[in-house]
Amino acid sequence: MPRIDNRNFDELRPVKITRNINKFAEGSVLIETGDTKVIVTATIEDKVPPFLRGQNQGWVTGEYSMLPRATEIRNVRESMKGRISGRTLEIQRLIGRALRSVVDLSAIGERTVWLDCDVIQADGGTRTASITGAFVALIDAFNYLCNKGELEKIPVVDFIAATSVGIVDDDILLDLCFEEDSRAKVDMNVVMTGNGKIVEIQGTGEASPFSREEMDAMLVLAEKGIKELIHIQRECLGEISDKIMGGSDGTDIKTNSDSDG
Amino acid sequence: MPRIDNRNFDELRPVKITRNINKFAEGSVLIETGDTKVIVTATIEDKVPPFLRGQNQGWVTGEYSMLPRATEIRNVRESMKGRISGRTLEIQRLIGRALRSVVDLSAIGERTVWLDCDVIQADGGTRTASITGAFVALIDAFNYLCNKGELEKIPVVDFIAATSVGIVDDDILLDLCFEEDSRAKVDMNVVMTGNGKIVEIQGTGEASPFSREEMDAMLVLAEKGIKELIHIQRECLGEISDKIMGGSDGTDIKTNSDSDG
Amino acid sequence: MPRIDNRNFDELRPVKITRNINKFAEGSVLIETGDTKVIVTATIEDKVPPFLRGQNQGWVTGEYSMLPRATEIRNVRESMKGRISGRTLEIQRLIGRALRSVVDLSAIGERTVWLDCDVIQADGGTRTASITGAFVALIDAFNYLCNKGELEKIPVVDFIAATSVGIVDDDILLDLCFEEDSRAKVDMNVVMTGNGKIVEIQGTGEASPFSREEMDAMLVLAEKGIKELIHIQRECLGEISDKIMGGSDGTDIKTNSDSDG
Amino acid sequence: MPRIDNRNFDELRPVKITRNINKFAEGSVLIETGDTKVIVTATIEDKVPPFLRGQNQGWVTGEYSMLPRATEIRNVRESMKGRISGRTLEIQRLIGRALRSVVDLSAIGERTVWLDCDVIQADGGTRTASITGAFVALIDAFNYLCNKGELEKIPVVDFIAATSVGIVDDDILLDLCFEEDSRAKVDMNVVMTGNGKIVEIQGTGEASPFSREEMDAMLVLAEKGIKELIHIQRECLGEISDKIMGGSDGTDIKTNSDSDG
Amino acid sequence: MPRIDNRNFDELRPVKITRNINKFAEGSVLIETGDTKVIVTATIEDKVPPFLRGQNQGWVTGEYSMLPRATEIRNVRESMKGRISGRTLEIQRLIGRALRSVVDLSAIGERTVWLDCDVIQADGGTRTASITGAFVALIDAFNYLCNKGELEKIPVVDFIAATSVGIVDDDILLDLCFEEDSRAKVDMNVVMTGNGKIVEIQGTGEASPFSREEMDAMLVLAEKGIKELIHIQRECLGEISDKIMGGSDGTDIKTNSDSDG
Amino acid sequence: MPRIDNRNFDELRPVKITRNINKFAEGSVLIETGDTKVIVTATIEDKVPPFLRGQNQGWVTGEYSMLPRATEIRNVRESMKGRISGRTLEIQRLIGRALRSVVDLSAIGERTVWLDCDVIQADGGTRTASITGAFVALIDAFNYLCNKGELEKIPVVDFIAATSVGIVDDDILLDLCFEEDSRAKVDMNVVMTGNGKIVEIQGTGEASPFSREEMDAMLVLAEKGIKELIHIQRECLGEISDKIMGGSDGTDIKTNSDSDG
Repeated sequence: MPRIDNRNFDELRPVKITRNINKFAEGSVLIETGDTKVIVTATIEDKVPPFLRGQNQGWVTGEYSMLPRATEIRNVRESMKGRISGRTLEIQRLIGRALRSVVDLSAIGERTVWLDCDVIQADGGTRTASITGAFVALIDAFNYLCNKGELEKIPVVDFIAATSVGIVDDDILLDLCFEEDSRAKVDMNVVMTGNGKIVEIQGTGEASPFSREEMDAMLVLAEKGIKELIHIQRECLGEISDKIMGGSDGTDIKTNSDSDG
Repeated sequence: MPRIDNRNFDELRPVKITRNINKFAEGSVLIETGDTKVIVTATIEDKVPPFLRGQNQGWVTGEYSMLPRATEIRNVRESMKGRISGRTLEIQRLIGRALRSVVDLSAIGERTVWLDCDVIQADGGTRTASITGAFVALIDAFNYLCNKGELEKIPVVDFIAATSVGIVDDDILLDLCFEEDSRAKVDMNVVMTGNGKIVEIQGTGEASPFSREEMDAMLVLAEKGIKELIHIQRECLGEISDKIMGGSDGTDIKTNSDSDG
Repeated sequence: MPRIDNRNFDELRPVKITRNINKFAEGSVLIETGDTKVIVTATIEDKVPPFLRGQNQGWVTGEYSMLPRATEIRNVRESMKGRISGRTLEIQRLIGRALRSVVDLSAIGERTVWLDCDVIQADGGTRTASITGAFVALIDAFNYLCNKGELEKIPVVDFIAATSVGIVDDDILLDLCFEEDSRAKVDMNVVMTGNGKIVEIQGTGEASPFSREEMDAMLVLAEKGIKELIHIQRECLGEISDKIMGGSDGTDIKTNSDSDG
Repeated sequence: MPRIDNRNFDELRPVKITRNINKFAEGSVLIETGDTKVIVTATIEDKVPPFLRGQNQGWVTGEYSMLPRATEIRNVRESMKGRISGRTLEIQRLIGRALRSVVDLSAIGERTVWLDCDVIQADGGTRTASITGAFVALIDAFNYLCNKGELEKIPVVDFIAATSVGIVDDDILLDLCFEEDSRAKVDMNVVMTGNGKIVEIQGTGEASPFSREEMDAMLVLAEKGIKELIHIQRECLGEISDKIMGGSDGTDIKTNSDSDG
Repeated sequence: MPRIDNRNFDELRPVKITRNINKFAEGSVLIETGDTKVIVTATIEDKVPPFLRGQNQGWVTGEYSMLPRATEIRNVRESMKGRISGRTLEIQRLIGRALRSVVDLSAIGERTVWLDCDVIQADGGTRTASITGAFVALIDAFNYLCNKGELEKIPVVDFIAATSVGIVDDDILLDLCFEEDSRAKVDMNVVMTGNGKIVEIQGTGEASPFSREEMDAMLVLAEKGIKELIHIQRECLGEISDKIMGGSDGTDIKTNSDSDG
Repeated sequence: MPRIDNRNFDELRPVKITRNINKFAEGSVLIETGDTKVIVTATIEDKVPPFLRGQNQGWVTGEYSMLPRATEIRNVRESMKGRISGRTLEIQRLIGRALRSVVDLSAIGERTVWLDCDVIQADGGTRTASITGAFVALIDAFNYLCNKGELEKIPVVDFIAATSVGIVDDDILLDLCFEEDSRAKVDMNVVMTGNGKIVEIQGTGEASPFSREEMDAMLVLAEKGIKELIHIQRECLGEISDKIMGGSDGTDIKTNSDSDG
C-alpha cells in the first residue's frame, strides 16, 4: 500500500536543520521533518541541580512543549492547566537521557545545559525530531564554550539521533507522520549513536503485540534512518563536526546516566 | 542623545508581518519588530465561555507566553512553576480587550476566537507586537469563515494596532527596545484604532511621575507609530483589507466590552 | 442626566479615613469612599525580597483581596480556588508601583513595607481607595520607625492618591460607583502626586474607543478629585503631614521603579 | 495568680455583637470578644452541594480566614500560598458542624447558607467567636427569608454558642486570650446549645495530659460562659429571638449531621 | 439491640499488632482492629522542621493516607487531586499531637520521627488504630536508637492508645465499626495514657447534641477499651516495654506541645 | 561474578502471589518478588472516561504509588508535594497500556477497571511486579462480573506478565534487584503475552549504549522469565485460568490501544 505522502517504506521525510535561529541562546536550531517543526535552544547555566552539587560534574536536561495550535485541534496550554501532562514529562525525561548518554558530564564542570524543545507545528515524530535537533544545538553550545576558552574540546563522544518506526496495516514503516502514527498497531521510538549502538528503545504494541521478527525488522529500518539523520547533522555542523570526540575515539570516556530513573 | 540602534526618536523598528505560517490555524502570522518575534495563531472554536452561553454572541480572547530562551536569561516555564505570572495575566487581558474593541461580537455567533501569542524572541514591545500581529491573524480567521460561507462579511469595525512610547533620560521615544525600556523613567503602551481613537492607554512613571505635557507629547508619537503599523497591516492583508467594515463606515455597529474587568 | 446618588459630575463620594484601627500593625486605616470600605494595614518586615538582597535599599509592596461578601454576589475565596485571579494580581502590582513612586527606597534600609488592602465592602473604586488609604497607613508606619529612632525622617517625597473617571452614557464623571462603572463606555484610573504629576494612568475604552479630547476632559476631572483626596489625607494625618519630605522640597530625592515590570 | 487582664478565672472578656454591618449580605455581624474581632456574613445561595442535590434539603457551611495582619506577626495569605492550612480546614469544618446541629435542614429547601468568618484582629478564641457570631448572622439570614415569605418560621431549634477553657499554670480559666492560650497546658473548645447540651468538644492536653476531674471542672466553666454568650445573642437579636424554634419546643424537629466527616 | 457483629456494647473488636513488617523502617507495625488494617512505619530523620532548628530538641509528626480501595467505594487518590483533604489534615495533626504528648522531645536531639499511617483496609476507627499502632512503631524506632548507642533510654513517659465511642440508636457503644459509625448520633475519639489521663478528646453530636451524663458514660467505656489496648501493646512489645520511662516514674519529665495549633 | 543474592544470571527471585487480600475490591492480590511487595486492587466502575462516552466500550487503567517508607530513604508523599512525578506518570501509563493490550474492551460495556498498584516495599522491579500482579487481580475482577452474570466470559485474550533485564558490569542478568538496578549500565523492562509476543519494550543504555547483540541476549532472558511468571499466574488462578480466552484462540478478538499516547 502506498504511503500517504508517497514515500517508500524506508524513506525519511525531508529534514532541514537551521542553526542559530535565536540571538540569545548559546546554541539554537529549527528542525523540520516534513511538517513537524521544532525550535530547540541550548542554554548554559553555571550551576547544577541540588543532587549534583559539589560533585564536580555537569548536567544536561531537556524540556518539551507544544504551542497550543501546533496541532489540528488547539490544545489548552499546560501553564493554564497548572500541571504538566504525563506525556510531556515522559518526553522530557527521554530527551535528557538521550543527550546525556553521549556527553562526558565530568568534563563540563558544574554547569547545566538546558535543551528547550518547543514544537511550533506537529505532524508526528516530535520527540525524535527534538532529540535530533537538540544534538546540533548542544554541539553549538559546547562550541561556544570552546571559543570562549572555557572548554578545551567538545565533550561529546558520539553523534546521536532518533526516529520512529512502526507497523501500519501490515507494513513496517520508517518515520511515521501523524496520520500513520494514529493508525499504527505498533509504534517504536529508537535513539542511536553514530556507531550504531542503541541508547533508548521504546516500543509498544498499541493495538496488538508484536513478534521478535517484526521487532528486528523495525530496528533495521530505524538504523537506516538514523544513519541518514546523523549524516544531515554532520553536514549541517560542517567543520565543527570534526571537534566532536576531540580526536579521541571515544572508547574510554565515561558518560553518565539518568539518575532520576 | 542618539538611540542605541541609531533610530530617530519618532522612528519604529523595522516591522515584518508574515501570514499563514501554520498549516492548521484559521489565521496565523509571524510578526517581527526589530529583534522581537511573535507567532500569533487565531483559532476558531464553536463554543463560548460559560458566562456567554445562550446569549447569541461570540468572544475573542488572547493568550500570551514566551519561550524560555526568548530572553537573554532563560526563564523558567510557567507550566513548570504551575502558575501564570501576574505579568502574563495582565498582558493576556490587554490583548483580549484590545481585539474585542473592534469586533462586532454579536455578528460571529456562539464562537470563540483564541489569539495565541507566543514570543519566540523578545527585545521589548512584545505585548504591543502581539496586538498588532493578532489583528492580522484575526482578520484571516474571519476571512476563512467568510470563504466557508459561515459569515457574510468580516465583522470588524476598524483596524487596531499598538506600540510603546516612553521617556528615556530626557528623550521622548517611540517603540522602545529592551535596553531603552529597562532604562525608561516613563513607559506607556497605547492601543489605537485606524481612525485615531484610543482603545487602551497604560502609562506608568516607573522612576518618576510625569507631567501632562510629557504625556501629550508621548501620545503624539504613539499616534504616528500606530498609523504606520496600520499601514503595514493593510499592505500585508492586501485586498482582504477592503472587506473590513464590509462597506459600512462602522459608525453604528455595536462592539463589546471586557466583561472580566 | 442626574447621577444615581445625585452627585455632580465632578463630585467625589463622601470620604472618611480612620487611622489606627488595628492594634498590631505599624500603620492601619479604614478608608470609606461612599459604600466602598477598605481596611489597609502597613507592616514593616526587616528583610527584602531576594532580588534586592545586599543592595542596601528597601521595598514597598501591596496585596489586595476582597472578603467573599464584599459584593452583591458572594465571590469564591481565592484561597479556596488555589489561585489568584489576573484582576487581583493586576491591582496588587498597581498598588505597589504607585506607593513606591513616592518613597525613597534607599532611605529605609533593608526593610519591606507590606500594604495589605482588604475590601470589606465594594461599591466601585476599590483599587483607587486602596491606594489613597495605603498612603496614610504607610506614613504612619514610617512615623512609627521615626518615633523608634530607626529613621530620621519620613522618606516620602510627596503625597499620592488615586481616583477613577469615566464616560457613562455621554457624561464624563468623577469617582464612579459600581453601577456607573458597570455601565461605563470608558473607564480610567489615575494616580497622581501632590504636585499634580501622573504616576499611573490606565484607561480602557471598554465599549468604544475614545478621543484625545475626551481623555483630556477626564484627566481634568481626575486632577480635581485627587487634589481633594490629598487634602483629606493631610487633614487626617494632622501634624505628621509636616514631616513628609522632611523639610526638603523633594526635588532631588531619587525614588524607585517597579522592577517586576 | 491574677489573669493578665485582671479577669476572674470564670469571667468572659467583654463581648459586643453589632448586626447589619454589610449592605449586601442577608445576615452580618461584627463580633468582638476583647481584642478579637470577627466579621461574619451569612449568604443564602439557591443551590446545594452536589452530594445533596435532589434530596429536598439545604446545607449550612462555614468558611474562615484571617486578614494577614490580624496577628502580631503578619501571616502570608493562604491565597498566595495556593493552599488552605490544616488549621483553617479544621476550623471551617467545626463551624459548619456546629451551626448545622441546630438547623432543620429539611425546612430550608435546596438552599446553602455560607457563613463567612473573617478575622480582622485576633487575640485568642477566634473559632469560638466565629461560631457565636455566626449564629446571629444565620438567624438574620433566615429572618430575611421569613420576611420575603420564603420561609414560614426560622428553622432553628435552639441557640448555640462556643467558648474556650483551659489550664494555664495550675489555674482552670474561661475564655483564654492569646497570651494565656499560648501558655496553656490544656486547651478545650466547647460548643453548647441553649438547653445545655454539648454539640462539640475538642480538648487537647498540649503540654500534659489531664484528668477526668480537670475535664469536669473545665466543662462547668464552659457551660457558665456559654450561657452568658447566649444571653448576649438573645439581647442582640431582640424580638427576632422569639421566632427561633417557631413556638415549638424543638423536641421533635430532626436536625442534621456532618456528612463530610 | 445486638451489635452488627454480636459484640457487647463494651467490647473491642479483635486487635492484632504485628511488628517489623518493613525491612527498611526503624520501626513498623501492621495493626488490625477487626477489618481495619493500618501499616505504620516510624522513620528517624536527622533534622527538625525549620521552626525548631537550633533549639536542641526533636519532633514527632504523623502522616495519614488511605489506599484508594481501602473503602467500599474507591476513593480518588489525594496525589491525583493535587491536594490533601481537610479530613486527612485533621487526622495527621491529631496523630502528631497524641504521640508528642508522651515523648520527651528534649531528649532526642535534633531528630524528627515520621509516623506514616497508611490504611490498607478501612472499617471504622482508622485514626484511633493509627495512634495505637504508631505508639508501638515509635517505641521500636527509639529502641533502635538505643541499640545503636545514640539514646540512653527510650524517651517516652507513658503508654498511649486511642479508641472511639459513640451513641448509636440509644446505645452507648465502644469501638464503632464503619456501619455503626455512619449511623451514630454522637461520635467521640479519645486518646489516653497508661495512667488514665486524657490526651485528646474530640466529640461531636453529629445528629443531635448530647448531655453531660452521656458524655460521662462514653468516657468510662473509652477508658476501659484503652486499658485493654495498652495491655495488647505491652504484650506485643515484650521486654522492651520495661525500657519505657527508663526506670523513672515520668513525673518530672517535660513533654511537648503542638506548636502548629 | 556471583549475584548479590547468589541467583543464577537467568533466575527470577522467589515470586508469591496471594489473592483476595482486600474485602472490598472486585479483585486483589499481594505480589511479592523477593523483597518487592505490591498490593494491587482491581475496582470496577460503571462509567468510562469522557473521551470514550457513548462508544459502547470499556477502559482499563492503572495507578501506581509507593508508601513513603517503601524505600531505604523515606520519600515525601506525592499528595503532600501536590503533584505526581514524571516517574509515577510514566509507570501508570505503562501499566494501563500493558493490561489493555490483552483485554477485549468492546466486550466489557461502559465500565472502567482501575488497577491500583501500591508498593508496600521496594527492592527493584516494582513496575513489572505491578503488571504481573495486576493481571491476576484483573482476571478476578472479570470473573466476579461473570459470576454475577454481567459478563459471559472473561474478555481477556492472553496472559501477560513483565520483568526486567539488564547489563550489570559485563553480565546480562534477569530480574534486577535494587542494588543491581542502580549499578546497571543497561536497564530494560519487557512486557510479553502468553504466546511470547512483545507488548512493550523499554530499554535505556543509562551508562552506555548497547549493541544489537546485547539486546537480543536480554530479550531471550526476559522471555524465559516471563514464561515462568505466567506459569505462576496460572497456578495461582487455578481453574479460573481455563476461562481466559473463553474457549477462543484469541486470534480474531480485537483489543485496544493507548489512546492517550
